[in-house]
Amino acid sequence: MSTSAEAVRDVAVRARAAAAQLAPTSRADKDRVLLAMADALLDRSVEILAANAEDVDAARAAGTAGAMVDRLTLTPARLEAMAAGLRQVATLEDPVGVVVRGSVLPNGIRLSQVRVPLGVVGIIYEARPNVTVDAAGLCLKSGNAVLLRGSASAARSNAALVAVLRDAAAAGGLPADAVQLVPGLDHESVKHLMRLRGLVDVLIPRGGAGLIRAVVEESTVPVIETGVGNCHVYVDAEADLDQALAITVNAKAQRVSVCNSAETLLVHRDVAAAFLPRVLAALREAGVTVHGDEAVRAIDPAAVPATDDDWAAEYLSLDMAVRVVESLDDAVAHIRRWSSGHTEAIVTRSLRASQRFVATCDSAAVMVNASTRFTDGERFGMGAEIGISTQKLHARGPMGLPELTSTTWVGIGDGHLVS
Amino acid sequence: MSTSAEAVRDVAVRARAAAAQLAPTSRADKDRVLLAMADALLDRSVEILAANAEDVDAARAAGTAGAMVDRLTLTPARLEAMAAGLRQVATLEDPVGVVVRGSVLPNGIRLSQVRVPLGVVGIIYEARPNVTVDAAGLCLKSGNAVLLRGSASAARSNAALVAVLRDAAAAGGLPADAVQLVPGLDHESVKHLMRLRGLVDVLIPRGGAGLIRAVVEESTVPVIETGVGNCHVYVDAEADLDQALAITVNAKAQRVSVCNSAETLLVHRDVAAAFLPRVLAALREAGVTVHGDEAVRAIDPAAVPATDDDWAAEYLSLDMAVRVVESLDDAVAHIRRWSSGHTEAIVTRSLRASQRFVATCDSAAVMVNASTRFTDGERFGMGAEIGISTQKLHARGPMGLPELTSTTWVGIGDGHLVS
Repeated sequence: MSTSAEAVRDVAVRARAAAAQLAPTSRADKDRVLLAMADALLDRSVEILAANAEDVDAARAAGTAGAMVDRLTLTPARLEAMAAGLRQVATLEDPVGVVVRGSVLPNGIRLSQVRVPLGVVGIIYEARPNVTVDAAGLCLKSGNAVLLRGSASAARSNAALVAVLRDAAAAGGLPADAVQLVPGLDHESVKHLMRLRGLVDVLIPRGGAGLIRAVVEESTVPVIETGVGNCHVYVDAEADLDQALAITVNAKAQRVSVCNSAETLLVHRDVAAAFLPRVLAALREAGVTVHGDEAVRAIDPAAVPATDDDWAAEYLSLDMAVRVVESLDDAVAHIRRWSSGHTEAIVTRSLRASQRFVATCDSAAVMVNASTRFTDGERFGMGAEIGISTQKLHARGPMGLPELTSTTWVGIGDGHLVS
Repeated sequence: MSTSAEAVRDVAVRARAAAAQLAPTSRADKDRVLLAMADALLDRSVEILAANAEDVDAARAAGTAGAMVDRLTLTPARLEAMAAGLRQVATLEDPVGVVVRGSVLPNGIRLSQVRVPLGVVGIIYEARPNVTVDAAGLCLKSGNAVLLRGSASAARSNAALVAVLRDAAAAGGLPADAVQLVPGLDHESVKHLMRLRGLVDVLIPRGGAGLIRAVVEESTVPVIETGVGNCHVYVDAEADLDQALAITVNAKAQRVSVCNSAETLLVHRDVAAAFLPRVLAALREAGVTVHGDEAVRAIDPAAVPATDDDWAAEYLSLDMAVRVVESLDDAVAHIRRWSSGHTEAIVTRSLRASQRFVATCDSAAVMVNASTRFTDGERFGMGAEIGISTQKLHARGPMGLPELTSTTWVGIGDGHLVS
């Protein structure tokens, strides 16, 4: 039987009530519960690991690929890492109540813009159970109630983790309903969640491009798009070619399955003859299959002919599209056309070129003489991230605690009237 | 014949190209064009007023109500005000390039978060032609291309205004396509616009609740909700009742057709006996029809019995819902249930009560001992506003120039690799 709209609505109504209770909660109370949650994950590891073992057995029986089974599997060390993540969130500044700006108006009203929780945050995600704990911790610290909709394959693990987190919240005097699973594992369950505008303040899909597109298309709840990365490295006419070589290989091959790895290399024609033979050899050595345009294939006939599908691809694999461009502006035009808006890198010694690239690219992050792989909440010093936004509204790039808040204008007068 | 998807897509593609050109444009160039636009509105007032006269004649012939005809009508004085608005926008700080935060990471990368234009902004609005000029000026200053979709009743006025603005942009060396009308006046035209995710970065509907709801429901382009105001005044047990009386009448009756006017009065039971007779008399004297609960009707039997429709209403008229509440928390619960999230006011001498009200209401603005009518971009010192957001993502409350931007992370390294 498919999940009813009422069942999903019911958890959202309870989340809303929990959010109202969380909003004025002090940092001390929230941190105490975060630490208690970390302890509880370890204290109750036997029941969590038993639930996870059932998920893992079911995945193996269903013939799930080894890499997916690995991502699903919890171990004492992984539980310890999840607990450490919660303890780290406890050390971060509370974003709620931070004054963004303020002044005394000419009429004497004291005006300030203050960070407040978003309210109810919905997270829709795929297999990894650590997202359950990370998201719950970040939402609690930022004063939000969270609705978690994980995948069917991790259902028992997620249920066990959420039970532990809810108990710790309640024991610490905070509402257990601050952390809830969305009922149901069918598509109806997500569909109902996406229609709860007014009850749910934002949905954050974390997963593949297909999941994200489906949520964006169907949701009336505001959505923050995350994590699709078709990132580019552009090697300028004035690049240090040694740096360019190292950055290209690092951005492509250091870890291929992540959204901040590079998928396309653009090379200025003035350095193509000097750079392409070196970089193509280095990429081949790193195990990368090159998909090249005519100019690239003239140098390396073994390169696969590149099509528009290659310029558009988020490979997440040992593949890279390579193209020779006429100019920096040509490179930017390519990027504006094909990029997912995640991260672009330029390698150049020219100040003017770096400035123009930064001013004309239209992506969440632009790196100058550095690998695309640096776009990451922890590397940016945020302490933790709930995802990397590739949209322009609200938050762009790595999202930490402040990005999980809204603001309220507070005006303090003494009988002030508008005339 | 209904407007084709291709025709709407075509203007969006041209807007996107214009946006790429606008993004790196200097403040000086943008301000010069804004001033030239202001001059051109006055220089070409004859053709603008002639086009407007045709709209006004058609509206009269169609039997449009007088107030609506008045809002549609342009005069030399109103053109002068529109020109003055553009000149004022030229005096405001350019939000593009402002560094929001930045630091040097432990690895030496210089990281900064910089304001950038959103890109292409779509505005869907009703009768008033001044929105055409205001929106174009604010979008240009913030480096955005704008797609304007006004109402059929103002079509000739909007076409004349946009022609003048485009000519001034082109004469100043900026792309004319930075300011465009969306083709078509049928519902299909808006429908196509709402499906252009990826080409249009944000849609801002300005108008009645019905328009806004329709856009929110149907759009795949991210939307910023504006302007629906069911605002509350809460008179606390420890209120200065003279201030409470003046603020209530000001918030309700100073101007009734605006989103920041108050629609509901909540009175703490401890002061109901002292305050209700006075405020009900004052409201009656101001011409206000009161819709009251039992306690109110016990004092004023002439009050209309209030229903849930009254608690939910954005009257925009000389009507006010009045209710006696048991406590501050009871008032907040009422507000959280029924408010549109625009502005709430508390009248109290108690610091603790004011703090709790601010911390537990969930609206874009909270006024303490001041009229709800203060929530306004100009009154907040922003210089101009494109609307008042009642949603929590991206911008909340009056939206000025910074709210028309996104951000990009810029990292400057020297061959930095991830290991």
